Amino acid sequence: MAKFVTIGERIHCISPVIRKAMAERDPEPILKRAKEQLDAGATYLDVNIGPAESDGEDLMKWAVQLLQSNFDNVPLALDTANKKAIEAGISVYNRAKGKPIVNSADAGGRIENIDLAAANDAIVIALCSAEGIAADNDERMMHCQNMLERGLMLGMEPTDLWFDPLFLVVKGMQDKQLEVLEAIKMFSDMGLNSTGGLSNNSNGMPKHIRPIMDSALVAMAMMQGLTSAIVNPCDLRLMETIKSCDIFKNNTLYADSYLEI
Amino acid sequence: MAKFVTIGERIHCISPVIRKAMAERDPEPILKRAKEQLDAGATYLDVNIGPAESDGEDLMKWAVQLLQSNFDNVPLALDTANKKAIEAGISVYNRAKGKPIVNSADAGGRIENIDLAAANDAIVIALCSAEGIAADNDERMMHCQNMLERGLMLGMEPTDLWFDPLFLVVKGMQDKQLEVLEAIKMFSDMGLNSTGGLSNNSNGMPKHIRPIMDSALVAMAMMQGLTSAIVNPCDLRLMETIKSCDIFKNNTLYADSYLEI
Repeated sequence: MAKFVTIGERIHCISPVIRKAMAERDPEPILKRAKEQLDAGATYLDVNIGPAESDGEDLMKWAVQLLQSNFDNVPLALDTANKKAIEAGISVYNRAKGKPIVNSADAGGRIENIDLAAANDAIVIALCSAEGIAADNDERMMHCQNMLERGLMLGMEPTDLWFDPLFLVVKGMQDKQLEVLEAIKMFSDMGLNSTGGLSNNSNGMPKHIRPIMDSALVAMAMMQGLTSAIVNPCDLRLMETIKSCDIFKNNTLYADSYLEI
Repeated sequence: MAKFVTIGERIHCISPVIRKAMAERDPEPILKRAKEQLDAGATYLDVNIGPAESDGEDLMKWAVQLLQSNFDNVPLALDTANKKAIEAGISVYNRAKGKPIVNSADAGGRIENIDLAAANDAIVIALCSAEGIAADNDERMMHCQNMLERGLMLGMEPTDLWFDPLFLVVKGMQDKQLEVLEAIKMFSDMGLNSTGGLSNNSNGMPKHIRPIMDSALVAMAMMQGLTSAIVNPCDLRLMETIKSCDIFKNNTLYADSYLEI
């Protein structure tokens, strides 16, 4: 099996520092946050520019070129509701280290992002929801099937759709957690890749608890076959857990130095 | 589902302090180590008196009464190769907080410890090995079946046999780790309880790595349905992980204070 893929989530316009840097095309704050995440072991970096309705195309191009030129063509997930901005980003994207990821399609209003990924030989994160959260795994897997078929019809490799079960918040949806984990097993049994915003589970919890919950969940999810996650790679406990699970799954060879790699 | 059961492993005659205390019937070192483990959240305490060929019966009785009288009838796992010592321990054991655990039977030379457990209405740890480590899960499950049938024939509840897949050391047997995890899933699918000496996996690793590996493994194993483990409850990271997995499995209800309970 391939090593687990971590997608660093910290270049996100929800952060005031990053939003300002994006607006002013100021490289330093973005490069700093990229470096922190790569040093911590992130494979991909997510670049979330928000809705970016006015200048999304220019902004995404700038960000892609900035990051790839400074970090040896680091592979990127292009994250915005602005489809033209994703296309613009891909137009300047260098694939030497991996295909671009379109973040994201769903089975409802955003299903056309699958078409966008297919047309551009990109990976797409395929959120198994349409209007609102799937009620159960029957609905999750129906969405999965719909998106998979759409991608295959358009000539995509099945492994280029990374299915996201949508991790749910424990506070309020504790009784749904096992169902999400079962969905991951279903994706895995079908030979499909999967990903998701793992830390959703711990939203609203005290700050010191979040890494503990996130780490426990990533290990359980990796046991179920999760192949990737969108995470904060600067969460040391989380990254240690991911590397350890990769050892148990025989995805990487154990060495006493495995945590430093 | 029931909450995960932790069996504290630190009252063990391999420790010079404990061996001396056992030989001299000195309560303090044993009570201290018991308290540390119970404060850290252990459910059961394992009492390993070694082969104890000469005075095992007297020693086990003493230890059982010492621990149960000081810690409100704490439930115990009686751990020795001396069958008469286990019987002696059970003869003075108070079941108010849970049945005694016989640690342990296997499918080879120690299979008669199942008979002992059956005759005494005890739980038994049933190691899925006979002469040496099982070569694969076919062999593990054959041992499991043999021990299960023996227990059932003798009138045991199937859930009173706690099957131990035998956790293997990563250094040297990395490629066998997933097989052990699959065995746990098979036990769970059969509705059986399971346990094991989880920290075997990290034998020989640098000290700072062991809690990281052990925590990752317990989360993966709990996802597979592991219902108990023999652990060092003073390993904070491990206990935090177990409590978190119990939340995801909906075995305990989430509260912001869940780690303190």
